[in-house]
Amino acid sequence: MRGTVLYGPRDIRSEDRPEPRITERTDAILRLSASCICGSDLWPYRGIAEVREPTPMGHEYCGVVEEVGKEVKNVRPGQFVVGSFASSDNTCVICRDGYQSSCVHREFMTAAQASLLRVPLADGTLVATSDTPSKELIPSLLATSDVLGTGWFAADAANVKPGSTAVVVGDGAVGLLAVLSAKQMGAERIIAMSRNESRQKLAREFGATDIVTERGDEGIARIKELTKGIGADSVLECVGTQESMTQAIRSTRPGGYVSYVGVPHGVELDGAGLFFAHVHLHGGPAPVRRYLPNLINLVLDGKINPGKVFDLTLPLDQVAEGYRAMDERRAIKTLLQT
Amino acid sequence: MRGTVLYGPRDIRSEDRPEPRITERTDAILRLSASCICGSDLWPYRGIAEVREPTPMGHEYCGVVEEVGKEVKNVRPGQFVVGSFASSDNTCVICRDGYQSSCVHREFMTAAQASLLRVPLADGTLVATSDTPSKELIPSLLATSDVLGTGWFAADAANVKPGSTAVVVGDGAVGLLAVLSAKQMGAERIIAMSRNESRQKLAREFGATDIVTERGDEGIARIKELTKGIGADSVLECVGTQESMTQAIRSTRPGGYVSYVGVPHGVELDGAGLFFAHVHLHGGPAPVRRYLPNLINLVLDGKINPGKVFDLTLPLDQVAEGYRAMDERRAIKTLLQT
Repeated sequence: MRGTVLYGPRDIRSEDRPEPRITERTDAILRLSASCICGSDLWPYRGIAEVREPTPMGHEYCGVVEEVGKEVKNVRPGQFVVGSFASSDNTCVICRDGYQSSCVHREFMTAAQASLLRVPLADGTLVATSDTPSKELIPSLLATSDVLGTGWFAADAANVKPGSTAVVVGDGAVGLLAVLSAKQMGAERIIAMSRNESRQKLAREFGATDIVTERGDEGIARIKELTKGIGADSVLECVGTQESMTQAIRSTRPGGYVSYVGVPHGVELDGAGLFFAHVHLHGGPAPVRRYLPNLINLVLDGKINPGKVFDLTLPLDQVAEGYRAMDERRAIKTLLQT
Repeated sequence: MRGTVLYGPRDIRSEDRPEPRITERTDAILRLSASCICGSDLWPYRGIAEVREPTPMGHEYCGVVEEVGKEVKNVRPGQFVVGSFASSDNTCVICRDGYQSSCVHREFMTAAQASLLRVPLADGTLVATSDTPSKELIPSLLATSDVLGTGWFAADAANVKPGSTAVVVGDGAVGLLAVLSAKQMGAERIIAMSRNESRQKLAREFGATDIVTERGDEGIARIKELTKGIGADSVLECVGTQESMTQAIRSTRPGGYVSYVGVPHGVELDGAGLFFAHVHLHGGPAPVRRYLPNLINLVLDGKINPGKVFDLTLPLDQVAEGYRAMDERRAIKTLLQT
């Protein structure tokens, strides 16, 4: 089958790879309907996260179950399913508390930029739809697997509620879907920080009420101006750099909430600064499995259209162009036809 | 009047100082019933926080109102009052949200290790009792002004609920009262980390069910052992060092809550480590004013006896011995007879 492998910085290849097989009784094999490229894939692509050996890529997926292991009970061949980027048993105490992405048996998915995928712990990781969805819904269903689930966690972890003022730092696909999520949770005012016209447009379409183009100290001052001088109730950090984290913390009012959902790279938080900021801070790998049933229903019911973040669609064997387009910010997010 | 001034590392003096006067229409002057020395006073005493000029000390207080400014309406001369270590208007949007210690008009109190004290924003800072309390209750009422209020915030910010497993890092007066607070909030299991026999004893008296003497990696391993391998629901960090913060974060289960209530000194948090720890983090200067009415009632009703943390009582002019005893860990906390 066709699969995607990263060999080193900016050396990404589409190549023939062995088909995955059931290796545990709890596995499932999916024939993917689509996959995509994640902003987090750019860290190793750019050489910021080290690549020690040729590494299969991809962790966002949806598709049809082809085969299941002997102990799998919740999904069966022929069903359309979406799964989280992190596998989970969905039964341990951490899963039951809603933190499936830290399940005691968690594995981070990889090798999903391919035609076929092995999913461990299928019963606790995958969610099946009752019918096979129409093709037009595939991008939005694919989005629930990570990018929407992560934006949703950003809004949830930042305590966005009806009437909240929320700021979204980062205009990548996660940031844009964090805007959509904040809107769904009833935020009254949603301030998107973006300098890019097409992203600003999509942010407004998803529910942003204000756009702030300034960054750093000027960006913080602008947020304060827009929030009676005290800062926002909720700030959703969707980048993962020192600058974006600092901006998020300093834009939040005392007693407010900061979430962060991108793996921080080279970020150090000053304890005393955080103390006097007086904020709540919560983040980590998004527990997508917690949200999947609800998010899938919102998509199937036509209430949200998160698939709009895919502004480039390519066949799997042109994956390298997909990475280039995202690296150069020519594309927000690339969907791969598997 | 007699007051306390820090001149430099370990140079603390009791001396004659001018009596405070009303300077704003919202001020009150109190004749203090008692004051005390805070663990945080030891940072500048030890030279870890810089002392640039002779600095009046003390921020914990209770006493009788002697005089009020023209705009003060909620308290009147003759009333017994307790106030927070941070003044607040108790009307701004941040106060109304319960974060009075970050009030837009906040001033941190100082000069309370004295006979008389000026309290700014008296209406929003002080809470009066309906009657003058008996002398035996003074230590416990004094404790509500900061050390108990701070321990209470530690438990609240760490989301301690009925049935929780809580770990308290730090066996100073705040840590011990964090144990008492966790007990009041219904924690089922309270693990106190302490190596000191008399502090262990008081921790047990306040509600600790387990004592852990190990620190660092061994301490974390011991907490994991006691919590089915996953970590505690709530960890209350009551020290403010890198070691104690790291210990707290790594002792918490994914999805759990870490609070921190001591000003962090030299603490840097690794963004990626915090991300994968998957914890909630909240802390800062305790919004004591939010809790004062409830805490005062608990004391007056005889339900709690936080004054037990005072194991040394000295007249105000022997304040230097009080600092020495706490610095050398001979005393948990020193009450000053004003």
